Amino acid sequence: MPESLPPTSTSVRPSGRQPDELRRFSMQLGYTRHAEGSVLVQAGDTHVLCNASVLDKVPPFLKGKGQGWVTAEYGMLPRSTHTRSDREAARGKQSGRTQEIQRLIGRSLRAVFDLTALGERTLHLDCDVLQADGGTRCASITGAWVAAALAVRGLLNGGVLLSNPLLDHVAAVSVGFVNGEPVLDLDYIEDSGCDADMNVVMTGAGHYVEVQGTAEGRAFSRQALDGLLDLAETGVRSLVAIQKSVLGTDACGAS
Amino acid sequence: MPESLPPTSTSVRPSGRQPDELRRFSMQLGYTRHAEGSVLVQAGDTHVLCNASVLDKVPPFLKGKGQGWVTAEYGMLPRSTHTRSDREAARGKQSGRTQEIQRLIGRSLRAVFDLTALGERTLHLDCDVLQADGGTRCASITGAWVAAALAVRGLLNGGVLLSNPLLDHVAAVSVGFVNGEPVLDLDYIEDSGCDADMNVVMTGAGHYVEVQGTAEGRAFSRQALDGLLDLAETGVRSLVAIQKSVLGTDACGAS
Amino acid sequence: MPESLPPTSTSVRPSGRQPDELRRFSMQLGYTRHAEGSVLVQAGDTHVLCNASVLDKVPPFLKGKGQGWVTAEYGMLPRSTHTRSDREAARGKQSGRTQEIQRLIGRSLRAVFDLTALGERTLHLDCDVLQADGGTRCASITGAWVAAALAVRGLLNGGVLLSNPLLDHVAAVSVGFVNGEPVLDLDYIEDSGCDADMNVVMTGAGHYVEVQGTAEGRAFSRQALDGLLDLAETGVRSLVAIQKSVLGTDACGAS
Amino acid sequence: MPESLPPTSTSVRPSGRQPDELRRFSMQLGYTRHAEGSVLVQAGDTHVLCNASVLDKVPPFLKGKGQGWVTAEYGMLPRSTHTRSDREAARGKQSGRTQEIQRLIGRSLRAVFDLTALGERTLHLDCDVLQADGGTRCASITGAWVAAALAVRGLLNGGVLLSNPLLDHVAAVSVGFVNGEPVLDLDYIEDSGCDADMNVVMTGAGHYVEVQGTAEGRAFSRQALDGLLDLAETGVRSLVAIQKSVLGTDACGAS
Amino acid sequence: MPESLPPTSTSVRPSGRQPDELRRFSMQLGYTRHAEGSVLVQAGDTHVLCNASVLDKVPPFLKGKGQGWVTAEYGMLPRSTHTRSDREAARGKQSGRTQEIQRLIGRSLRAVFDLTALGERTLHLDCDVLQADGGTRCASITGAWVAAALAVRGLLNGGVLLSNPLLDHVAAVSVGFVNGEPVLDLDYIEDSGCDADMNVVMTGAGHYVEVQGTAEGRAFSRQALDGLLDLAETGVRSLVAIQKSVLGTDACGAS
Amino acid sequence: MPESLPPTSTSVRPSGRQPDELRRFSMQLGYTRHAEGSVLVQAGDTHVLCNASVLDKVPPFLKGKGQGWVTAEYGMLPRSTHTRSDREAARGKQSGRTQEIQRLIGRSLRAVFDLTALGERTLHLDCDVLQADGGTRCASITGAWVAAALAVRGLLNGGVLLSNPLLDHVAAVSVGFVNGEPVLDLDYIEDSGCDADMNVVMTGAGHYVEVQGTAEGRAFSRQALDGLLDLAETGVRSLVAIQKSVLGTDACGAS
Repeated sequence: MPESLPPTSTSVRPSGRQPDELRRFSMQLGYTRHAEGSVLVQAGDTHVLCNASVLDKVPPFLKGKGQGWVTAEYGMLPRSTHTRSDREAARGKQSGRTQEIQRLIGRSLRAVFDLTALGERTLHLDCDVLQADGGTRCASITGAWVAAALAVRGLLNGGVLLSNPLLDHVAAVSVGFVNGEPVLDLDYIEDSGCDADMNVVMTGAGHYVEVQGTAEGRAFSRQALDGLLDLAETGVRSLVAIQKSVLGTDACGAS
Repeated sequence: MPESLPPTSTSVRPSGRQPDELRRFSMQLGYTRHAEGSVLVQAGDTHVLCNASVLDKVPPFLKGKGQGWVTAEYGMLPRSTHTRSDREAARGKQSGRTQEIQRLIGRSLRAVFDLTALGERTLHLDCDVLQADGGTRCASITGAWVAAALAVRGLLNGGVLLSNPLLDHVAAVSVGFVNGEPVLDLDYIEDSGCDADMNVVMTGAGHYVEVQGTAEGRAFSRQALDGLLDLAETGVRSLVAIQKSVLGTDACGAS
Repeated sequence: MPESLPPTSTSVRPSGRQPDELRRFSMQLGYTRHAEGSVLVQAGDTHVLCNASVLDKVPPFLKGKGQGWVTAEYGMLPRSTHTRSDREAARGKQSGRTQEIQRLIGRSLRAVFDLTALGERTLHLDCDVLQADGGTRCASITGAWVAAALAVRGLLNGGVLLSNPLLDHVAAVSVGFVNGEPVLDLDYIEDSGCDADMNVVMTGAGHYVEVQGTAEGRAFSRQALDGLLDLAETGVRSLVAIQKSVLGTDACGAS
Repeated sequence: MPESLPPTSTSVRPSGRQPDELRRFSMQLGYTRHAEGSVLVQAGDTHVLCNASVLDKVPPFLKGKGQGWVTAEYGMLPRSTHTRSDREAARGKQSGRTQEIQRLIGRSLRAVFDLTALGERTLHLDCDVLQADGGTRCASITGAWVAAALAVRGLLNGGVLLSNPLLDHVAAVSVGFVNGEPVLDLDYIEDSGCDADMNVVMTGAGHYVEVQGTAEGRAFSRQALDGLLDLAETGVRSLVAIQKSVLGTDACGAS
Repeated sequence: MPESLPPTSTSVRPSGRQPDELRRFSMQLGYTRHAEGSVLVQAGDTHVLCNASVLDKVPPFLKGKGQGWVTAEYGMLPRSTHTRSDREAARGKQSGRTQEIQRLIGRSLRAVFDLTALGERTLHLDCDVLQADGGTRCASITGAWVAAALAVRGLLNGGVLLSNPLLDHVAAVSVGFVNGEPVLDLDYIEDSGCDADMNVVMTGAGHYVEVQGTAEGRAFSRQALDGLLDLAETGVRSLVAIQKSVLGTDACGAS
Repeated sequence: MPESLPPTSTSVRPSGRQPDELRRFSMQLGYTRHAEGSVLVQAGDTHVLCNASVLDKVPPFLKGKGQGWVTAEYGMLPRSTHTRSDREAARGKQSGRTQEIQRLIGRSLRAVFDLTALGERTLHLDCDVLQADGGTRCASITGAWVAAALAVRGLLNGGVLLSNPLLDHVAAVSVGFVNGEPVLDLDYIEDSGCDADMNVVMTGAGHYVEVQGTAEGRAFSRQALDGLLDLAETGVRSLVAIQKSVLGTDACGAS
């Protein structure tokens, strides 16, 4: 893996994007009406519906401990992908990939929650991919945070919560080496052919919640890793700005 | 169950609809981009994404028989409902209700397909409920037909198929007795409190494909049944007209 | 589907039966000794063992609500069929067909039960097909009612129940078009080749509990549907008469 | 466990049977009509339906080896027992006890089969308990042998087999210590309270196929074991005689 | 099966062992550190790790009955065998063989436990085969007893138990006919080719807990059975002596 | 998370280790005899048995592509942990954590394999935790590489492979912040209470294969991340040196 080169004027990306350019990212709040928080996230052709449910119970291991829980489930519609995938409900189990992703979403969200301030209730986030074009787990995290913030706002407005359990923003983006060049926010074509792929989850304060880098082809150097981390930071900063623009800057208790 | 009364000027329906009035019904074609046919059906607050996939294989029992297959799967997103339902993929199995519905969708579609003309391929229909407000199985059937027709059109346009395997339209609507009055196209509130509930699947020619009536409270008379069947026929006729308006009248080989 | 013709003197049915003729129907009460109600139903070569169990508990969703529950399970012995079918317990799940049928049996029985009068207990009906020749779901419903009535009689005789929770009879029969002619109580050969198939569940009072019609080949007209409903009514009336003859006319609280 | 005492004139058995007395044992051949061999076995109140199916295939590990296979499955109807048991198909798996028993039945039958003479086909035995009163696995083995013999006879009569693959009879009986006394063919009450329980599977020639003894309470001595083995031998001899009387003495190729 | 011959000076066993010679048997106590009792059993090339866990709960059917429970689970590491076996956790279910064995281990241990003296707690024995060369179930039983005794000693030493619930030793060995000769403690090669195979579980007092004999090839005579029982008794006696040598003679309350 | 401090002379680690000190690490080659490569890895009190199996088949998606596959499965014995965990085979499914770990092991090993040079065969790595004290996934990767190298050596020695498909070493170590200080190779106590936890998988050449960092408490800064990466590099270098010392420096084709 060569050292990162300065972006040239002619992009090497199939989409024509600059190396450090995010896909068009939009969020449609209130996409469905039953959930306490609902948002349809669109990162280019990746579309994820994130719904937050407030449940008046906690998992068994937290019963009577005076704190709440935040958890997530993830799924892909069978034809969200280029060719049809099996329906996990019909196969009778969730794949290892699905479980890995939903555990990641849950951990990422919990990192910015004061579970004691949430009280004995569960915030359950469902991230369902309607259309996939790479980066579904990152879009899920960024969107789930918004769905969660909407649900929290409802609890605060309704007087159910007196203080805001949401401590900070959290958002995620992928970075990777495509044809030897570090690029931000990989789409499916880039993801399929990249040499290394990293998902970075960061808070609004710019700290790391999760860093997951994988060499797809050859192992990568420390210098390459540093280049990817730089790129990810700019990406997450933009996503947090978008979160603030759709929700206002007062979504978190501490900010 | 009393005999059906003439609709009064003041509707008894929570939605304010007339007894024989469908919900606002719309279909957004091409809602996702990977499926060979894709449509988002909205029947009032019931939203179902219907995707048709063309697969170059048939189930084992049809191998080498020179004919194709049409089948369906159905699912509800966990928070499509008023309160969150368990995710079937996480529970590890599809409920009896889910299986019953997806079998119904498959049978309904096969009734208007010439499987030999389809050739040795499978048309797989995925009906996923994004938001539920009653009548999801009927919306699924009506939408799945459109997704199937789009996929067939693609096969014809691409020269894969030389003759149209689609013989007729198929659409479905629910009818039932609410407070003793026969009403068309029940929403969730009506469905929860009705005395009888019937789902009627009919072809464009006005013939029955499936008739499924269930007494929820008391058993109902032949006269009541006749009233429901009358109402259903007008509903299906309107839905077929909508199908024709979005696809044109030439979607079926025979029409 | 042509309009129904008057039955000719020469029957077109493989069994030689008249179009409106039921198979020989018998019920052997007390077929097994442990169940609170037990009956072996024989409708021609279709043999179903129906056992009713009285359980002193209700499902979770009914706990503390002061009412009971009636539910059913259905199964086919692996070699009840012409060729051996897989054992569902060995495959690890019940098929969609099995679940559809047992849900139908449960709904049909509940339609004639006053669940409050039953008290906080469950009447669990097991319908196991020992030998199949078509019409197993209808035989199951007709037999399950008798098993339930026997169990109720035991509870009344034992002073456990003071009033009869059984409101009416319920019985079921299949009808269908075979070679263009409407016939009653289809056996396996007829069922395999019929154009339309309808299962009708009715009360002793002659009202509908369930109507499930399916076009196997071509969709059918309203006129054809009416013909089938006429035929079903005569069939159910005969089955209710048989139920009365084996149990007496006082099996229901209201009759 | 004291040494076995001579049977006194007043039986200690709840049923009033002598210590070495079998229950009334009957076999109804052709109980169902689709199976290639079918028999309803009744050992007192234990009723087991044994069906033999001839399948024109062998398990993968035998493909192309020029020999056949004999296997068995076992099940209890939910209400075959004093109190209702869960349906294994609904629970989604067979219990350890069920698997243990069906493996025993299969091994027992294979012990008297010349699998090469059977050719590349499978004899699949289904043993389903309609009513249970102890000793269901022994009744299953004894009955499965008859069902198998009937199926073999059909293959010989039809010219499918030219030589008889059945080498000998096989039958099984339980023995145990009840109140310190060795008794034959335990029913449910005896089985529940016995100190030791042994199932013995033997051939017509009087040799052992399986011996499975279990101390339920205290461990038992060699002398006690010898007493049980003596008793079992007389029981199996009687059961083989019954098998011969219902099938004739020519059921086995070698006898 | 011929009568047993006196062992000749030239052994017929692949391992060169005398017919009545056990494999080298060793037990490494405290093999793992978390379990309340842990022992690695090595019977020749068969290595089983037996861990005893003390759990402060009992199964539902024993709640509030003032007694404890002893139970076992068994597993084989995928590559404990000559060729790799599927991992049961990945396949999603335990095989019939696994369930049969773990039920046998549990019953064998319970036979020497005073469950009331154990109090309301469960002794859970995990027997995991690290390397298999025949006789894993017997090694598991013999080792599980030692693990259980270590756990009991800890409970007594810690003052949790005031009297010893362990009534006697229990150990198990396999015997069988190899090339017509009765041999003790079969290894994998012998086990694969033997004519009959018997697992015998006995107490320190020399009484039977379980006797499970199976004819692999031809059925065997009473005389052959007697020969195997003789051989098993000497084997178990040696194994009990080894148990005593590693734990001392005071492991049981009664001895 | 404060910036990393220089290690003081008095260690803050429960084990008394220096911050950059690995646990005692040993590898016992040939621990079991059936596997093509077998090693028992001991990293302090974490003991993992790594077995490599060579299978003459590839997964379906690779059939006929002229290349091999490397995959892994992971499991923990129920009592490898401080308190007993459920057996995954008995529960009927692998946990999300298990699947996540075995996918990580597989990817890590594939990163240093030339799958074409491996030919159409699968190297299946089984990593089973006999005793757990933190860091089981890292010990599994480091040990699985050795088991794989042993299996490859066997294939080369046996002439099955002509060139070495193993391109480089791979090893893994955990790092984290304990009480604000970066430490290497966390044991269970440290892992339970740490603020951040990172698993780093690197090649012998010092490049990254996987980087997985998770904030357990608060999110961590770029500076903190850099400190952890430094520490991990020294740890992996030591582990690779140990791999070389047990296998020699010629285990890889390219080194």
